[in-house]
Amino acid sequence: MNIALIFYIIGRVLQIEAVFLLPSCAVALSYGEWQGWVYLGVAAAAALAGQLICMRKPKNMTFLTRDGFAAVSLSWLVLSAVGALPLRLCGDIRSYTDALFETISGFTTTGASILTDVEALSYSSLFWRSLTHWIGGMGVLVFLLAIVPMHGGTHMQLMRAESPGPSVGKLVPRVRSTAKILYLIYLGLTATEVILLLCGGMPLFDSLTLSFGTAGTGGFAPKNTSVAGYSPYLQWVITIFMILFGVNFNLYYLILLGKGLEALKSEELHWYLGVVVFSAVSIALNLGRAYGDFFHNLRYSFFQVASIISTTGYGTADFNLWPTYSKWLLVLLMFFGACAGSTGGGLKFSRILILGKSIRLELRKQLRPHSVSIERLEGKPIGEATIHSTLVFFACYLFLFFLGTVIVSTDGLDLTTTFTSVVACLSNIGPGLELVGPMGSYIMFSPLSKIVLSLLMLLGRLEIFPILMLFSPRVWKK
Amino acid sequence: MNIALIFYIIGRVLQIEAVFLLPSCAVALSYGEWQGWVYLGVAAAAALAGQLICMRKPKNMTFLTRDGFAAVSLSWLVLSAVGALPLRLCGDIRSYTDALFETISGFTTTGASILTDVEALSYSSLFWRSLTHWIGGMGVLVFLLAIVPMHGGTHMQLMRAESPGPSVGKLVPRVRSTAKILYLIYLGLTATEVILLLCGGMPLFDSLTLSFGTAGTGGFAPKNTSVAGYSPYLQWVITIFMILFGVNFNLYYLILLGKGLEALKSEELHWYLGVVVFSAVSIALNLGRAYGDFFHNLRYSFFQVASIISTTGYGTADFNLWPTYSKWLLVLLMFFGACAGSTGGGLKFSRILILGKSIRLELRKQLRPHSVSIERLEGKPIGEATIHSTLVFFACYLFLFFLGTVIVSTDGLDLTTTFTSVVACLSNIGPGLELVGPMGSYIMFSPLSKIVLSLLMLLGRLEIFPILMLFSPRVWKK
Repeated sequence: MNIALIFYIIGRVLQIEAVFLLPSCAVALSYGEWQGWVYLGVAAAAALAGQLICMRKPKNMTFLTRDGFAAVSLSWLVLSAVGALPLRLCGDIRSYTDALFETISGFTTTGASILTDVEALSYSSLFWRSLTHWIGGMGVLVFLLAIVPMHGGTHMQLMRAESPGPSVGKLVPRVRSTAKILYLIYLGLTATEVILLLCGGMPLFDSLTLSFGTAGTGGFAPKNTSVAGYSPYLQWVITIFMILFGVNFNLYYLILLGKGLEALKSEELHWYLGVVVFSAVSIALNLGRAYGDFFHNLRYSFFQVASIISTTGYGTADFNLWPTYSKWLLVLLMFFGACAGSTGGGLKFSRILILGKSIRLELRKQLRPHSVSIERLEGKPIGEATIHSTLVFFACYLFLFFLGTVIVSTDGLDLTTTFTSVVACLSNIGPGLELVGPMGSYIMFSPLSKIVLSLLMLLGRLEIFPILMLFSPRVWKK
Repeated sequence: MNIALIFYIIGRVLQIEAVFLLPSCAVALSYGEWQGWVYLGVAAAAALAGQLICMRKPKNMTFLTRDGFAAVSLSWLVLSAVGALPLRLCGDIRSYTDALFETISGFTTTGASILTDVEALSYSSLFWRSLTHWIGGMGVLVFLLAIVPMHGGTHMQLMRAESPGPSVGKLVPRVRSTAKILYLIYLGLTATEVILLLCGGMPLFDSLTLSFGTAGTGGFAPKNTSVAGYSPYLQWVITIFMILFGVNFNLYYLILLGKGLEALKSEELHWYLGVVVFSAVSIALNLGRAYGDFFHNLRYSFFQVASIISTTGYGTADFNLWPTYSKWLLVLLMFFGACAGSTGGGLKFSRILILGKSIRLELRKQLRPHSVSIERLEGKPIGEATIHSTLVFFACYLFLFFLGTVIVSTDGLDLTTTFTSVVACLSNIGPGLELVGPMGSYIMFSPLSKIVLSLLMLLGRLEIFPILMLFSPRVWKK
């Protein structure tokens, strides 16, 4: 275990967090809020602590997989612990545990909130809350890689531990350039959304915070009614961007390279869009005359399907009140999640595809035990090892779901609240059904359940293994 | 595809069914019911049809895996279609679709019922309903193997397709002797239960029908209140036998051979009993003062845990009204199921163990990518192929669950009814929660949902692949 290097990375992460805390001070300045001082103070403390830690540069810059895992998961814990401070210190959230829950929910782009009245918060805190989504969406270590030069091996281990999906594709040979390109695409898409929202007459503050939430597929909104109070145009803009941020970013890179046609051929993309359209249309049919007619229903169903499948979690309606088919389909989509290499959570479409293909393969093997056959994804043969690790990931995911629900069920809340809260946290969505529905909150859970749900958010965001390894004694051996 | 041999097997199955229909005639005789004539008529017709089909003995007795799968799944369909006839013809169930649902539920040892007043049935039908559990529990083709001499290869293919668990162990080199031994153990255990129930003062009719339901891990009871109306002694006897019938029958064979100690070392047995005790004790604690005190709670919790984990489905209480933890734990146990090689359904404990071990293996591999390590089950190393097919089975199971719930959710019943009905059918348990709870019934589902649920029962009982293959065009190619 390369402890010195891990410390060094955590120090750098603290410095980055300090920089990201500053915009909230600017927000406070423009709204005349005293809370800006709190944000400035925490930023200064974080910067100082980071500088102290980074004073001693580690001599050995080589990194093993488990070092990468440990660095990423510890960084995320420190990031959250520090990020929760201003929320608590300025009094916007009264308990540090709740502030930590809210911050983890922010960084993991979950969007599950313990707040019952969002609008009571200061603008600085609302801004910070939404900004955590943006930071967490693409990943703080990917950001670190983009700006700080480090050893080659280190790069890949960190990238692999923080990026979602069954396999990490380097866009270009150098990991650092890959990280830069990813962040530029991310920034470009976010800026485009802000501009389109501004064009629709949305105030700047709302445009920025809602865009941060969309980009990171988070779901914190600055209003109690989430996105329900905005015009149909604005809702459609957000719908489209939620879908866009659920797409593998490699495809945008291909488009930038002028290989747009190749990007459109992606198998995962076809399935992702196919499921979005099928779900939205069938839910619109299932809704009957809920919002007038089929075409008015479509706006609500498309928004909600995009919001759940991209694991964002915004709402324009209380889907808690929708008919069973609509509700249940949304619950299933919570497990699915978005595409690999996007900012979304969940199992990811490429994993679902690999699962489907491995079932087909097994059926064929049962029929003809001695035949050899392979399945392809995106034109490339899927190796035994990929199938195996995907299947194990799937099993892990469901075990965590089961374990989480058993612990949370001891709170004695109703069955639907219990299991949807767990999947909504594990898949980084945010709202579930019943008490944790789009109009609900996570405030009524016991401290134990809140800790478990926070852990599930981290497990979901970092794709299980990095966090799980923290509990393995082997990792801590020299 | 060896169509001639498949036909021949179906013919034999019809003849066996005819024999099994006769006891209901005897019941009718002793209760003076006219319905006995219906059962006699159907038995005669089945015997005749079977004889006609078996007139032409197939020349080619070789059998491929897919032939075995097709023979088993088609046999089960014919068995159910014919078995539903007397229930419909004697008017005890008014619609053939409902009678078919009830019969499939019987043979697959599910115990999901469309009846709202069980006691309104004739004794002949009550007896037949329970006897279907006993036949389905060990399997009609295993029975066929035990009594009809057939070609060696045929034996193993049939046995593999009908027996539950990830791998079929032959007790003795000859499959036919294995089938005989299994049926003798089955018969012996059932007879012991009947005697113990009679000793507790239970009427003969109830003792027989309840023992059939316990042995097959079915769950149809001759009373509307299931097992609630019997004395604590009788309830404990049934509790213990439910647990016993959930154990791998190979262990009983070891005991018969005087290798009792070896049987007690089974890893799967330890986990199975451990989960039973943990669940029962924690539920008894969770129940608080529901039935007086902890020790009174234990009788109810042990009964219900044994009933669910063995996938029987009897009830002594309406667990629908229990607190969330208790209810949710029971729902999770529905997925687990009993041990491999038992008469129970669900995923089976050995599969859960293989899943757990493969997760541990993957974690190790992530930590040390270049190390080689193996996991053992029952002392033997688990091969890659076993892990792989177990993982695929698990994925298949959950895909079927997902697909089933989506279709059933279009009925618009509540969420909990929807998903528990699907898992209760797929795992061959019977009762779920809410409308399909222990005091509920499956009568309110649409015909489409009833067909889907029936299919799920068959998929669950025959462990997915044999039924799934019927839908594959490849199977039907010459």
